[in-house]
Amino acid sequence: MPMTDLPSAVTNERTEQTNTTNEQQESKGFDYLIVGAGFAGSVLAERLASSGQRVLIVDRRPHIGGNAYDCYDDAGVLIHPYGPHIFHTNSKDVFEYLSRFTEWRPYQHRVLASVDGQLLPIPINLDTVNRLYGLNLTSFQVEEFFASVAEKVEQVRTSEDVVVSKVGRDLYNKFFRGYTRKQWGLDPSELDASVTARVPTRTNRDNRYFADTYQAMPLHGYTRMFQNMLSSPNIKVMLNTDYREIADFIPFQHMIYTGPVDAFFDFCYGKLPYRSLEFRHETHDTEQLLPTGTVNYPNDYAYTRVSEFKHITGQRHHQTSVVYEYPRAEGDPYYPVPRPENAELYKKYEALADAAQDVTFVGRLATYRYYNMDQVVAQALATFRRLQGQPEQGNAE
Amino acid sequence: MPMTDLPSAVTNERTEQTNTTNEQQESKGFDYLIVGAGFAGSVLAERLASSGQRVLIVDRRPHIGGNAYDCYDDAGVLIHPYGPHIFHTNSKDVFEYLSRFTEWRPYQHRVLASVDGQLLPIPINLDTVNRLYGLNLTSFQVEEFFASVAEKVEQVRTSEDVVVSKVGRDLYNKFFRGYTRKQWGLDPSELDASVTARVPTRTNRDNRYFADTYQAMPLHGYTRMFQNMLSSPNIKVMLNTDYREIADFIPFQHMIYTGPVDAFFDFCYGKLPYRSLEFRHETHDTEQLLPTGTVNYPNDYAYTRVSEFKHITGQRHHQTSVVYEYPRAEGDPYYPVPRPENAELYKKYEALADAAQDVTFVGRLATYRYYNMDQVVAQALATFRRLQGQPEQGNAE
Ligand SMILES: Cc1cc2nc3c(=O)[nH]c(=O)nc-3n(C[C@H](O)[C@H](O)[C@H](O)COP(=O)(O)OP(=O)(O)OC[C@H]3O[C@@H](n4cnc5c(N)ncnc54)[C@H](O)[C@@H]3O)c2cc1C
Ligand SMILES: Cc1cc2nc3c(=O)[nH]c(=O)nc-3n(C[C@H](O)[C@H](O)[C@H](O)COP(=O)(O)OP(=O)(O)OC[C@H]3O[C@@H](n4cnc5c(N)ncnc54)[C@H](O)[C@@H]3O)c2cc1C
Repeated sequence: MPMTDLPSAVTNERTEQTNTTNEQQESKGFDYLIVGAGFAGSVLAERLASSGQRVLIVDRRPHIGGNAYDCYDDAGVLIHPYGPHIFHTNSKDVFEYLSRFTEWRPYQHRVLASVDGQLLPIPINLDTVNRLYGLNLTSFQVEEFFASVAEKVEQVRTSEDVVVSKVGRDLYNKFFRGYTRKQWGLDPSELDASVTARVPTRTNRDNRYFADTYQAMPLHGYTRMFQNMLSSPNIKVMLNTDYREIADFIPFQHMIYTGPVDAFFDFCYGKLPYRSLEFRHETHDTEQLLPTGTVNYPNDYAYTRVSEFKHITGQRHHQTSVVYEYPRAEGDPYYPVPRPENAELYKKYEALADAAQDVTFVGRLATYRYYNMDQVVAQALATFRRLQGQPEQGNAE
Repeated sequence: MPMTDLPSAVTNERTEQTNTTNEQQESKGFDYLIVGAGFAGSVLAERLASSGQRVLIVDRRPHIGGNAYDCYDDAGVLIHPYGPHIFHTNSKDVFEYLSRFTEWRPYQHRVLASVDGQLLPIPINLDTVNRLYGLNLTSFQVEEFFASVAEKVEQVRTSEDVVVSKVGRDLYNKFFRGYTRKQWGLDPSELDASVTARVPTRTNRDNRYFADTYQAMPLHGYTRMFQNMLSSPNIKVMLNTDYREIADFIPFQHMIYTGPVDAFFDFCYGKLPYRSLEFRHETHDTEQLLPTGTVNYPNDYAYTRVSEFKHITGQRHHQTSVVYEYPRAEGDPYYPVPRPENAELYKKYEALADAAQDVTFVGRLATYRYYNMDQVVAQALATFRRLQGQPEQGNAE
């Protein structure tokens, strides 16, 4: 562990400005080195700084925001370089916390799936079934329909089990099987139930992709929100920087690590599988290209989906920018792969992480959890309370 | 001077990646600490990094680019928060150097002055005179006109002298006197000739504000260009950071300072006068507000000028953003005030700067010079050659 001993006799210029403990008053350098400026790192930086701690936050990328970073592309369209990020949560706490750093634009994401030559609502709802099969069922009838096609599964273990036990094999094949195989490079029968359990099925005509209480986009984008979170004079932001480049000569007391946990321990137990993505960004000379924010392609093409940012951000522009997502085995780690053997391997790294007294592991990659943004915020807020010695409240979901 | 002694026995991870000298191979930390991420600091960071030096560049602002920084405002219009920055140069070297980091959009700035209820071309040209006085002179005749109204000045010393000796008192009063008094809080008779010498007078109809060989804007903005300049893995960027907050515990060998020179020496000889500005940014619900990029108000209002960014950047948008500039005595230092007594005071600071072996002073504020962007780039490139021990070539103009 790169951890620098701090001289204790040197007085510190900053102590007037910050609520420091005795120990800190005697130290030079930072109280916290935070690795990663995504949601996990930025929430902790903000909380710690506002409680008087001096924080250095580093990211090896040239920007803050982690995967939620947004920026204007060459055409002046606000895009999400790492794929579309839609904010949604049921947690009042998380929503109110983030509301300190941004105003919001109400936005409910809608997705269509390209199946059998039609664009049909996903999650599967009444309209999906009626339009796919040329039927005219009511809500009650579609419930009977699902019951009639559902397959009996003794114990729901895999992603395939989840879906066929709810909507039967034909809808499974048309909407889920191909998409999952593309997305994960694995058949749904090889993946945890958790993966498709995220996608509900509806008997009404609700075509919103998410059903959460709070669904909104930061009014001026994610990056602006992160800038506001990191604006305290107690926070120093260092970009283009892998923490290993500086941790042996910049003094700090405690590290918060939000990168991949296996990389932190030099892959000593082998690599934790992460799924990666390649993004193809395009700008078109037309005001609007897609009927909804995202169109899924479960069965055709090498990409899983196309998303058009202006739907999501509400920007007006004479051109439009879209992104195609190509799942990849190699590349930046994006998604922990939810399989039992991976959870096992993670447990071994988790034991090392728990034993590392001077380092706290937080976030999607550091805790190898398939978390959404709001869950990462909740996890970071809980971590802050733990660091402060406060009792836990709420949970990360 | 905050300068940390470096342990010499510790090997350095980064040495494989960089062309380091023996001395550096033994050092931990950075070869250079660069204070200020504007043109002066960023050019030097880029040059030093590309010659294998490890650079930490810090800025107390939350962004790179210094006063040339641009960004998208709340409405999604690309603006210059610190006032309109138009790039123009006669230096092929400077233009070619910057062209490594950006493509360009040809742009020739035009300015109108609001005088006697008309919007008239400035610098004063044939059309200005004809429209102001309701005349119909030719180029030859306007030259005679200027000669007939010009006042004889024994020795051209002040800004007033420059103008009245060229175009007479009426044009001086209408176009220069009020503007200069607002801009500098001083009468032109109290200012160096250099201030208005920048503004030529023309007998033809050329209404471009600048006459330089190269006139162009970075195609995707200044900030993008700076991002490209600072993208080397040898450069670490630290924002929100006054160098005094970190210089006593982050080890480095040499400092490059681009902030105000008087602040560096704790104002030991008193404050160097800088003129400041307050910017009022507005967005309007119309596609275009002004006929040209800038309109000057020499005689009316508290602001000197209004500029509309879409003229300058070429952006298409259904709204438009403009900035009003209010000159101020207090605030961020923007313009060194060109007066003989200030030059005297600067000389005293310059002597201290020359004596500071471990620090190099570069840029508009650190060398107290009323430099344009291209001149600062040229000065920084010359400084780099000097640091490398190469013979000087070219000059900073
Ligand atoms: C394509 C895609 C779409 C998504 N869509 C949504 C969505 O619509 N809604 C939603 O709620 N969630 C979405 N998510 C999930 C969301 O991106 C994550 O929950 C969130 O970004 C995780 O934040 P984090 O801080 O844990 O990790 P990250 O955002 O990944 O931040 C970690 C940071 O650590 C840095 N880092 C790693 N190692 C080092 C090192 N050695 N030194 C320095 N820095 C390092 C990385 O550069 C990175 O910036 C999506 C994810 C992806 C991949
Ligand atoms: C309103 C206005 C309009 C202009 N228009 C034009 C134009 O049209 N064309 C043109 O060519 N030029 C123009 N200029 C001039 C141009 O802005 C400068 O030439 C150029 O920006 C100077 O670059 P610099 O790096 O020397 O200084 P700056 O850009 O001022 O950068 C210095 C940086 O140092 C940082 N700093 C200072 N002290 C500290 C400290 N203690 N710790 C950390 N960081 C510190 C500051 O935050 C700043 O970012 C204009 C200037 C102004 C004010």
